[in-house]
Formats: sequence, C-alpha cells, structure tokens
Amino acid sequence: MEHPGFTLWFTGLSGAGKSTVSGLVAARLRARGCKVEVLDGDVVRTHLSKGLGFSREDRDINIRRIGWVCEVLSRNGVAAIAAAISPYRAVRDEVRARIPNFVEIYMEAPLAVLAERDVKGLYRQALAGELKNFTGVDDPYEPPLQPEVTCYSDGRETPEQSAAKILAHLEARGWLPPAP
Amino acid sequence: MEHPGFTLWFTGLSGAGKSTVSGLVAARLRARGCKVEVLDGDVVRTHLSKGLGFSREDRDINIRRIGWVCEVLSRNGVAAIAAAISPYRAVRDEVRARIPNFVEIYMEAPLAVLAERDVKGLYRQALAGELKNFTGVDDPYEPPLQPEVTCYSDGRETPEQSAAKILAHLEARGWLPPAP
Repeated sequence: MEHPGFTLWFTGLSGAGKSTVSGLVAARLRARGCKVEVLDGDVVRTHLSKGLGFSREDRDINIRRIGWVCEVLSRNGVAAIAAAISPYRAVRDEVRARIPNFVEIYMEAPLAVLAERDVKGLYRQALAGELKNFTGVDDPYEPPLQPEVTCYSDGRETPEQSAAKILAHLEARGWLPPAP
Repeated sequence: MEHPGFTLWFTGLSGAGKSTVSGLVAARLRARGCKVEVLDGDVVRTHLSKGLGFSREDRDINIRRIGWVCEVLSRNGVAAIAAAISPYRAVRDEVRARIPNFVEIYMEAPLAVLAERDVKGLYRQALAGELKNFTGVDDPYEPPLQPEVTCYSDGRETPEQSAAKILAHLEARGWLPPAP
C-alpha cells in the first residue's frame, strides 16, 4: 500500500526528548508499514555538515541541508524525521515552506527541568561556561509559535504518550495506514 | 508493487551525456512506476555543498554527501540517480561500498570529441586557461575500472540506446518491474 511521505520536524532544547520520542514514533511507523528515515542532528553533522560550527549561520546551513534531505525523502513517500535542536524560527519556517506535508513538533520542557535532569552532563558544563554556544544557556532558542504538535517532556507526559499524540495527528490528517 | 531501491551512479567528463542519459533513464523508470530522484551535480552543490570548491578534498566531500543521500534514498525503495563528474576513483569506490544496490555507469567519450562538441563553451575556456580545475583539462579524471555499464557518447550510441542498456542491466538484476 502506498502512503504519502511527510516530514516530522522535532525541535526543542538538548535533553527535551527529541531522540527518544522520534525513535518511538519511527518504530510505530515502521510497524504500520511506513518507510521511515530518522535524521538525527549528530548523524547529519557527520554526513552532511562536517566542519560546520554552532554560529547562527552554520546552524542555519545545517538545518537547510537537513530540510532538503527531508524534502527529497518525503516527496518519495518516506516518513522523514528530523531530530535536531533547530533553534531558529526563521529557518524552520523556511524549511516548512518547502515541504508540503510538514509537521512541526515542539518538545517543550523548561530549561530548569532539563538542567536539573542533565542526562548528558552538558548543562552543567554550559552553565559553568566550559561549553560555549549552548542552546538555551548562552545561545538562543526560539520556540515555534504554531507547532502542529506540542509534547511536554517535563514529566506531564511519558515519551509513549508523546508518541501517541503524534501518531494521532498523522491519522487525523489521513497520512497513516490503519493499525494492523 | 514494491521494488528495491538502487543507486545509479553516472560518472564521466563534462559534456559526456550524464544529464541527458540520466534524464532519459529517470523518465523510463517513472513510467514503470518507480520512485526516482535525480541528484544532479549542480543541484547538489546548491543544497548540500554551497561553499565547496573544486580541490580534490572539496570534490571528495561533495561526492560523499551525494553518496550518503543516495544511500538513504535507495534503502527506502527509491531509484537514486547521481549525475556528477565524480572524477576520483577512490571516493566512488567508497560510496559503492556503502550502498548495496550500486550501479556505476561510465559515460565514456574522448576529450577531443567533447572539446570539439563543447556544448557549453567550457572546454574552450578551460583550454585557454580561463577556467581552472577543469576535469580532463587541468584536473584529473580517473575512469572506473569495472563499471557495471559503459555508455559511449562519442557518436557510437544515441542517448536512447545508452538508456536502454542501463534499463536492460536493471532488468537482468531483477530490480525493475516489467514494462507495462
């Protein structure tokens, strides 16, 4: 069965659950027979954007490249999932404008919660000034104004509940095959 | 009907017919119901590799990026077609090693024929020294040693005949749906 491709664009601070929830969604989509490709921020920096740094300009170039790959994938029937911080609104909107079936997913969590949790120990380093250009600490993050889906990873929602919300959104738009 | 993805990797000098033949092949594949994406050298330089130049290092980075996109597309059932000069054998072989269904297509034509034809006027400029790092003139081209398909665009074959050879190769490998 043929399904339309689409792009799920996760955005949010480091530690807000982009990788966890996108991984869950990817698994659910595959179980429904979708072709799925997850473009994780780190993977993409290896293959597409080696050498780019974390200035606004370099971040924007990185996001445009991820966006272009999502565009190419989704017009070929693939569920493309981008899971990069993508802190700047303007370039996210630029990508949105290029991709017909675009779903922006805002992983919302207060900085205080993420810094407290600090799974990778990065917030501690950033707050101590040992890590520069860290989004949310000394680099800006511009939350989406009208994301299609907002997930709360501050404890109000489990990752499973976040994933279910996203699946429900896709079903409502008629982009998902029915559950087997 | 579901078909395996694959990558058709065209290589050859400027003017050797990569764009023409890849365009014909893309049209034939779409007519057979395949999903097809053509990654033209120039398109890719806009979206993935803006800022890269024509040193060996920059050319290799460009080819690795095209290769990665082909890999992602073809593992999702798409016929990915790369049509870039890709002058260096080592990086072509690196890409080949990463992509299971990889078909290298060598567009063979003697430099003298291409310079004489000179559709875009680039050979004249390169031979006059006005255009630097021009493959085949003052930059190397390393032909494939064992390409899956060799096409002759020196007049021995029409572009239609070249396209037919490539389709026949794909049929022989069982990667093509039967003609409607």
